[in-house]
Amino acid sequence: MKQILSYIESNKKRYLNELTELLKIPSVSSQPKRKDDVLNCANWIAEHLKTIGMENVKIHKTKGHPIVYADYLKTNGKPTVLFYGHYDVQPEEPIDLWTSQPFDATIRGENLYARGAADDKGQIFIHFKAIESILKNYGELPLNLKIIIEGEEEVGSPNLENFVKQNKQMLKSDLILISDSSMFAKDVPSICYSLRGLTYMEVELTGPNRDLHSGSFGGSVHNPIQALCEMISSLHDKNGKITIPNFYNDVLSLTKEERNSFVKLPFSEKKYAKDLGVKELYGEKGYSSLERVWARPTLECNGIWGGYTGDGAKTVLPSKAFAKISMRLVPNQSSKKIAKLFENHLKKIAPKTVQIKVRSLHGGEAAITPIDSNGVKSAVIALEKGFGKKVLYQREGGSIPIVVQFKKILKTDTVLLGFGLPDENAHAPNEFINLNNFFNGIKTSVYFYYEFAKSFEN
Amino acid sequence: MKQILSYIESNKKRYLNELTELLKIPSVSSQPKRKDDVLNCANWIAEHLKTIGMENVKIHKTKGHPIVYADYLKTNGKPTVLFYGHYDVQPEEPIDLWTSQPFDATIRGENLYARGAADDKGQIFIHFKAIESILKNYGELPLNLKIIIEGEEEVGSPNLENFVKQNKQMLKSDLILISDSSMFAKDVPSICYSLRGLTYMEVELTGPNRDLHSGSFGGSVHNPIQALCEMISSLHDKNGKITIPNFYNDVLSLTKEERNSFVKLPFSEKKYAKDLGVKELYGEKGYSSLERVWARPTLECNGIWGGYTGDGAKTVLPSKAFAKISMRLVPNQSSKKIAKLFENHLKKIAPKTVQIKVRSLHGGEAAITPIDSNGVKSAVIALEKGFGKKVLYQREGGSIPIVVQFKKILKTDTVLLGFGLPDENAHAPNEFINLNNFFNGIKTSVYFYYEFAKSFEN
Repeated sequence: MKQILSYIESNKKRYLNELTELLKIPSVSSQPKRKDDVLNCANWIAEHLKTIGMENVKIHKTKGHPIVYADYLKTNGKPTVLFYGHYDVQPEEPIDLWTSQPFDATIRGENLYARGAADDKGQIFIHFKAIESILKNYGELPLNLKIIIEGEEEVGSPNLENFVKQNKQMLKSDLILISDSSMFAKDVPSICYSLRGLTYMEVELTGPNRDLHSGSFGGSVHNPIQALCEMISSLHDKNGKITIPNFYNDVLSLTKEERNSFVKLPFSEKKYAKDLGVKELYGEKGYSSLERVWARPTLECNGIWGGYTGDGAKTVLPSKAFAKISMRLVPNQSSKKIAKLFENHLKKIAPKTVQIKVRSLHGGEAAITPIDSNGVKSAVIALEKGFGKKVLYQREGGSIPIVVQFKKILKTDTVLLGFGLPDENAHAPNEFINLNNFFNGIKTSVYFYYEFAKSFEN
Repeated sequence: MKQILSYIESNKKRYLNELTELLKIPSVSSQPKRKDDVLNCANWIAEHLKTIGMENVKIHKTKGHPIVYADYLKTNGKPTVLFYGHYDVQPEEPIDLWTSQPFDATIRGENLYARGAADDKGQIFIHFKAIESILKNYGELPLNLKIIIEGEEEVGSPNLENFVKQNKQMLKSDLILISDSSMFAKDVPSICYSLRGLTYMEVELTGPNRDLHSGSFGGSVHNPIQALCEMISSLHDKNGKITIPNFYNDVLSLTKEERNSFVKLPFSEKKYAKDLGVKELYGEKGYSSLERVWARPTLECNGIWGGYTGDGAKTVLPSKAFAKISMRLVPNQSSKKIAKLFENHLKKIAPKTVQIKVRSLHGGEAAITPIDSNGVKSAVIALEKGFGKKVLYQREGGSIPIVVQFKKILKTDTVLLGFGLPDENAHAPNEFINLNNFFNGIKTSVYFYYEFAKSFEN
């Protein structure tokens, strides 16, 4: 391992030069005028994968931008890791707000600034350099590795699901590894082991069969906006708990170990409230804000509309009122089951004065890769060795659709090994990657492949 | 009186011919291309007022369409009535849906169809012919009469308030008379003696200082849509009463006489609900639907919006939520006082998790011309003589801004002597006036002037 570490140390400058080359390609997947740039980037990635020693490199065409595949399958009897990343980037606009040119990587202080530096070119490059370091020094990887780097993550990966479905055998692995996220804070290496799921619903209430004059009819008929407000306000009790019967039945409870670990994270409820501009936080009683967002199911009204919403006054008693309501789900809850519970409950509490329609717009399951799984345990050891610091556990309140898709199609768990920082400006001007994270990331990646291989030996 | 009645009888055909001439002029006040037509109509009205014997006829220019004034002030010591009407009409579109040409008055069955037949040319013409009938037979009116016929009612009377303010002395009267409304039902002559007022507010709630991702933040901060729903749902109690403290303090209660009279109106709660398409009606406990709409203050949410309201799903936890909320007021409630009560209450019940702004958009007072006033008593006697039927009392749940303005500026009550019918298609294709109502209206108008004069003798 010493040999690898010294190899990394002596090649730092070259690594940055190569990354700078990759960052120069404006592979903005959402802009048709950049179609050739995106393709050039796929070619660059493919060539580079060959250079570092990956095999069977192939550029798979899709209906959109291509997916680059490569593998290394020479270590018989060892586990297989599927590494996923993306080579496309967000648009650079507004350009005025960049301190240096977005596609001309520039070091200032301890950061490297460029579009894609963190999301995700910089992070996939960490793994490329880890692989190179191992192969150049030992001639072989400690496990089998498959890599897919797609070019449409920033536009919602419209062609990835089909690709995965059509190449199940090719993509089979023991673990999926993604480095496209952030550590909890600078100098706080952390591992995110769970994501929430989602059930997104739309509710339509109809009161009178037409918009009415609020003078001539107001007071004699139940206003559907009022009825909707009454229904929505009843969905939480005074302790912030969701009142839908059986909603919490399948919720995987937090363990003491998890709660103790969250407490160690540098997080101030007071600062959190101040950052959000609220005088008081709100949520389910008995849980901290991090626990509420990461590990408890929640219900949010994402949109509401009805009646007159323009300037000034219109005295209408509307016929209809609508709301978009979504629920974030935690492991073991079923998105479809919750959608059904929601629909039944809303229909039950709708007063007789209105008619109700409930539509399910979409949903996805929560994901968890247990703390004591080989993947997470290996990642924790690797991070601690790579960064020389105690690693903390975290979860994520949002969903990462690809993680859910991989789980659904390939039945494989994902480890999220994020080397970004929360303030890295991933979709904004002045995106950067911290150079310390970049180089410690390469070490961590090396350690991870060895640790994960080792975990299968026991 | 016999002489007048037989004069009316023998001139019916001419009356209709003259009305047809008036209805031919497409005096659509909202359409710039009809500006000359509107002016022609003002001239026609002015000429006609001279013909029937009115004096001091003058066309007053405004910033928009002119107001025609005329008076008859020869009866010293007698009361003065100010008659208000309008000669402008709604656009005739959609023309396809008219059975006969909109500006070519056509009799079908017992109705005369044309744009303006009921609203308001037909109804002002009832009074013109009543005046003519009296003057042609007796040479003088039983009281002093002032007439203003404006040309901008259908566009909100933007220049009337100024005109009234600048001509207070000229418009001074003991009673204002308007025929621009409907009877309760066919063959049910009724007198509308009260209108509701209005206070229209807008509420803005701010939760977090920016739109948040509902995954990354959902559950840790009070969603302003939810907070708004909680606040709105608390504004009515389970009996449908408004919960704002002191809201009902100044409400003028319904008398037994009024309630008994309303019960006699041909009105079915069941049919009302069916027409509106609702399975169950809603409202303040202890009151009928007519009472709720006519004589009880109510609170309606006229509009609500916040978050994502487009197609599909967006997982936003919005920064802001808005509602437009108006209250219909009844006599003795003050629109300004209620606005203040509303604002104070909303600010009080807003949770600490959000910030609130409350704006007052506009307001107007309720109006009542007591049942036992000379005006209403005279109208009832006149209607009963004109239609040969028992007259019932009604109120109106909406506001009529000009009535409120007249009361505010001239300090004079209004009697609404409506000869239209609820299904007259006032702003729609196939507008009509019932011919029976037209001719009985002329008699009623004659009787009214005599009765009102007589009521001052006692």
